Amino acid sequence: MSFTALDSQYMALAIQLAKKGWFTTRSNPRVGCVLVKNQQIIGQGWHQKAGLAHAEINAIQDAIDNGHDVAGATAYVTLEPCAHQGKTPPCALALKQAKVAKVICAMLDPNPLVSGKGLDILQQSGIATAYGLQQEQAEQLNPGFIKRMVTGLPRVTAKVAISVDGRTAMANGQSQWITGSAARADVQRLRAESGAVLTGSGTVIMDNPSMNVRELTFLEDKHFKQPLRVVVDSQGLVDSDAKIFEQEGMSWLVSANQSNKEYPATVINKVIAASTGKIDLKALLIELANAGVNDVLLEAGAGLNGAMLQQGLVDQIIVYMAPKLMGNAARGLAHLPFTDINQALALDLTDVRQLDHDIRLTFQVTSH
Amino acid sequence: MSFTALDSQYMALAIQLAKKGWFTTRSNPRVGCVLVKNQQIIGQGWHQKAGLAHAEINAIQDAIDNGHDVAGATAYVTLEPCAHQGKTPPCALALKQAKVAKVICAMLDPNPLVSGKGLDILQQSGIATAYGLQQEQAEQLNPGFIKRMVTGLPRVTAKVAISVDGRTAMANGQSQWITGSAARADVQRLRAESGAVLTGSGTVIMDNPSMNVRELTFLEDKHFKQPLRVVVDSQGLVDSDAKIFEQEGMSWLVSANQSNKEYPATVINKVIAASTGKIDLKALLIELANAGVNDVLLEAGAGLNGAMLQQGLVDQIIVYMAPKLMGNAARGLAHLPFTDINQALALDLTDVRQLDHDIRLTFQVTSH
Repeated sequence: MSFTALDSQYMALAIQLAKKGWFTTRSNPRVGCVLVKNQQIIGQGWHQKAGLAHAEINAIQDAIDNGHDVAGATAYVTLEPCAHQGKTPPCALALKQAKVAKVICAMLDPNPLVSGKGLDILQQSGIATAYGLQQEQAEQLNPGFIKRMVTGLPRVTAKVAISVDGRTAMANGQSQWITGSAARADVQRLRAESGAVLTGSGTVIMDNPSMNVRELTFLEDKHFKQPLRVVVDSQGLVDSDAKIFEQEGMSWLVSANQSNKEYPATVINKVIAASTGKIDLKALLIELANAGVNDVLLEAGAGLNGAMLQQGLVDQIIVYMAPKLMGNAARGLAHLPFTDINQALALDLTDVRQLDHDIRLTFQVTSH
Repeated sequence: MSFTALDSQYMALAIQLAKKGWFTTRSNPRVGCVLVKNQQIIGQGWHQKAGLAHAEINAIQDAIDNGHDVAGATAYVTLEPCAHQGKTPPCALALKQAKVAKVICAMLDPNPLVSGKGLDILQQSGIATAYGLQQEQAEQLNPGFIKRMVTGLPRVTAKVAISVDGRTAMANGQSQWITGSAARADVQRLRAESGAVLTGSGTVIMDNPSMNVRELTFLEDKHFKQPLRVVVDSQGLVDSDAKIFEQEGMSWLVSANQSNKEYPATVINKVIAASTGKIDLKALLIELANAGVNDVLLEAGAGLNGAMLQQGLVDQIIVYMAPKLMGNAARGLAHLPFTDINQALALDLTDVRQLDHDIRLTFQVTSH
């Protein structure tokens, strides 16, 4: 399929529109749509929040609101229009009823069970279809959603704040404010784009963190929802009045046995034990995926970080490095008891950015 | 003193000329000189190597070689012309004899004992003088020389190659090729610009490194000299046939007691012990400065790195970070037994660069 330069411009606009839902569409994907007729943009839409209208419907409504007739238009959509009845009717049907002449999408639905079905409905109605325009950029809109659809697991980003010598906290636990305010603001953004924030009992007991989104930019958006907070606590050590359970939104307390403590009503106790008596972390991730979590932000200590890394469950590591040397008695970022250099985990550096006095390094985990 | 845009251009050229001696002038400073007459550049020179002519002399000779009369010219020099007889006659006298009309230098001589004396000689001969033009850039030509002149200590750069979790080697010592070839080539450059490479007995015994400059670009320059190799070996553990002693150029074996081993003729045994029986590292640095070493490259393990850092003897840390996680059993970059976060050493990030898959971070040590 070949596309024109104009096609590319319209799709680029659709991708920009999709980004407007960056922090609010989960567990749905971020999607944008542009309607074009006689080389004129007649409608623009994007998905805002699960349960509300999809991008295509918003674009059609936008066109109608502005007095345009959608019949004969070309729709540029960043993701294949859905073919199924969910919380809203299928978009493929809506495009058919609006009598568009052509639908170009950047990528097919990543869910192997429905991939291609939306375009099938359109083609069977005599509507021209094409896909693959700016596919890579469209994929970058939804790396977590795509991973969940393809593998049944959420995408996991481990966030660590370390000194130059790779330490997260002093041996006595002192760790507050290793990095500066710009790095901490960046972590707020990471949380806000995640469906769940995952941590361990050690971090909760030591630091008593809130692990919520506090940045007003996000809170002032009426569509914004706090990410689920998930605490791995195999031995039931965390107090029921920990700050993390007192924040707005839901929490999961994940333990190896049913807890008999009284937690706030927003806390759900999940029992997900492996035969070893430890938490089955992969089973936990599957359960999170099934609950609609596309992206998990792992904000934990060396123990949980190490277990997640060793089990190949981490996709990406974001390192905030503060210009300090904390010394060799301080705590490391991940418990990885390697003895041979061939056991070392291989990463791939994909982004470097300076944040005030700190530096942010983004790595993809390439060896599992 | 105010300078014109043309003055700035000529001084910028003089600074560029000075850089041509980057790897060869030590223990002398890097200096460049431009002679201008009637808005025409009539001579250019730079210092190439200790013992050879200074920049001013080379510029005067260049002008004469090209048939110019230097009388009445303005000399732009990156460093105040010397007033003393060294291996070569004083440049201030040469400029006076050449009858230049004016001398503009970027900075005064940093040696407090002679600072200003060169310009005094010129002024007393009726030659106009000025200084302070592009002083900061000129200072960056010679950070090690300036530190040595002002403090009597060389500038120390610690080089470390680490994984993302801050480890330099596995517990069993495996460490070869943590970083890629671009990072290793960069280390060759660091060595080539240093007067001495400093390491410890542990590194020599474990890795048996050569610690010499092997990159042809440097070796093919007839003015290039291998940096002095310095091994701190308080207990006399290093074998006399270690590779580091077999390379071209001189080595110092620094021990707490006179060694009775037979070392190659290029090895000088220095006894520099503190009352503790350990090596007095500051005394060692003073001795290196007295031997004309402006810049020391510290390429050592956690023990010596930690001692140097704790004693406030390190000015700069260059970190080559490989995209790997080596695990918490692996060795750290510096033995710093801190227990409270207020003991952490503060650094200042001054440069970030990607070298293939690795990243290079340059930090100045701000707290001593």
